[in-house]
Amino acid sequence: MNSLEEKTITIKNIYKGRIIELNIEEVLLPNGKNSQREIIKHPGAVAIIALTDQNKIVLVKQYRKALEKNIVEIPAGKLEKGEKPVITAIRELEEETGYTTDHLKYLTSFYTSPGFANELVYLYYTDQLYSLENKKELDEDEFVELLELSLEDTEKLINDQVIHDAKTMYALLYLKLKRLEKNENQ
Amino acid sequence: MNSLEEKTITIKNIYKGRIIELNIEEVLLPNGKNSQREIIKHPGAVAIIALTDQNKIVLVKQYRKALEKNIVEIPAGKLEKGEKPVITAIRELEEETGYTTDHLKYLTSFYTSPGFANELVYLYYTDQLYSLENKKELDEDEFVELLELSLEDTEKLINDQVIHDAKTMYALLYLKLKRLEKNENQ
Repeated sequence: MNSLEEKTITIKNIYKGRIIELNIEEVLLPNGKNSQREIIKHPGAVAIIALTDQNKIVLVKQYRKALEKNIVEIPAGKLEKGEKPVITAIRELEEETGYTTDHLKYLTSFYTSPGFANELVYLYYTDQLYSLENKKELDEDEFVELLELSLEDTEKLINDQVIHDAKTMYALLYLKLKRLEKNENQ
Repeated sequence: MNSLEEKTITIKNIYKGRIIELNIEEVLLPNGKNSQREIIKHPGAVAIIALTDQNKIVLVKQYRKALEKNIVEIPAGKLEKGEKPVITAIRELEEETGYTTDHLKYLTSFYTSPGFANELVYLYYTDQLYSLENKKELDEDEFVELLELSLEDTEKLINDQVIHDAKTMYALLYLKLKRLEKNENQ
């Protein structure tokens, strides 16, 4: 028995958009009372830690309307319906960076905002990048600038809150830890 | 000039709830075309990395309706309107764990889902916890179970996707890195 579970009584769909859906769910709490949960349904996403052969991290600068500012993130994108995350990851890497790879390693996955959304991000890693001869087109409403930075360079961007999102900051910690573990084993 | 900026043409509020708001924003893209953005407004949140004097990590198990499962997270909670994040952090630590502290260090902040939401999480750290003599009440629709785990114990929960959210996985990487850096300097 799951003593913390909240059973669904009713689901009311408020909005079904291009990317997200909003439902209001009436739930039965563990103490027998009712409450409402505001839930965003999201198709899920991928993000890619990609290192060049000069050991630079491939990043994209992008205007995020929700934040009303540009931020710098690791390449990422939403899953298309029924698409396997690894396929999305290759597609987004190609579209956003002009690189491709045949060595993509799955690292982990995490929910971004479990309090109100089911968005799950699948995180991949590659240090084997090849430049595409023919660049892929971005989505028609997508505009990004490519950056290639050393791990040290990213520190300043974190301090300046230009790098300012969870998946990218997780990725940079991951790389720091990986580097430190490698040094320890040498 | 910010060449990536998307100027707002109109904002249509779809929903204003207890926690989140949903707006559809008509925007002018950098290429002169129009597009729509689905934007969730969120009050922001705090999360706390809290270590006991036995060096255990304080965690809470909680049912997340958006995910339809229990997950284990670091203590966290939403900002009340106008509340300073550090005040929220102390309150949530007290309510969710029965501990308090007078040494809370601000670590960093990150947006959780910049593609569609403005939720910003402020992350704090403390290794100086004191048990409250009189436990605080949780919100009336909030039910949590307290756990205190070693960093090693959390690895299994990550593998089993019981620990499965970005802020908690960031926090655990942070602690791993901190431990490794400490060992290096000894």
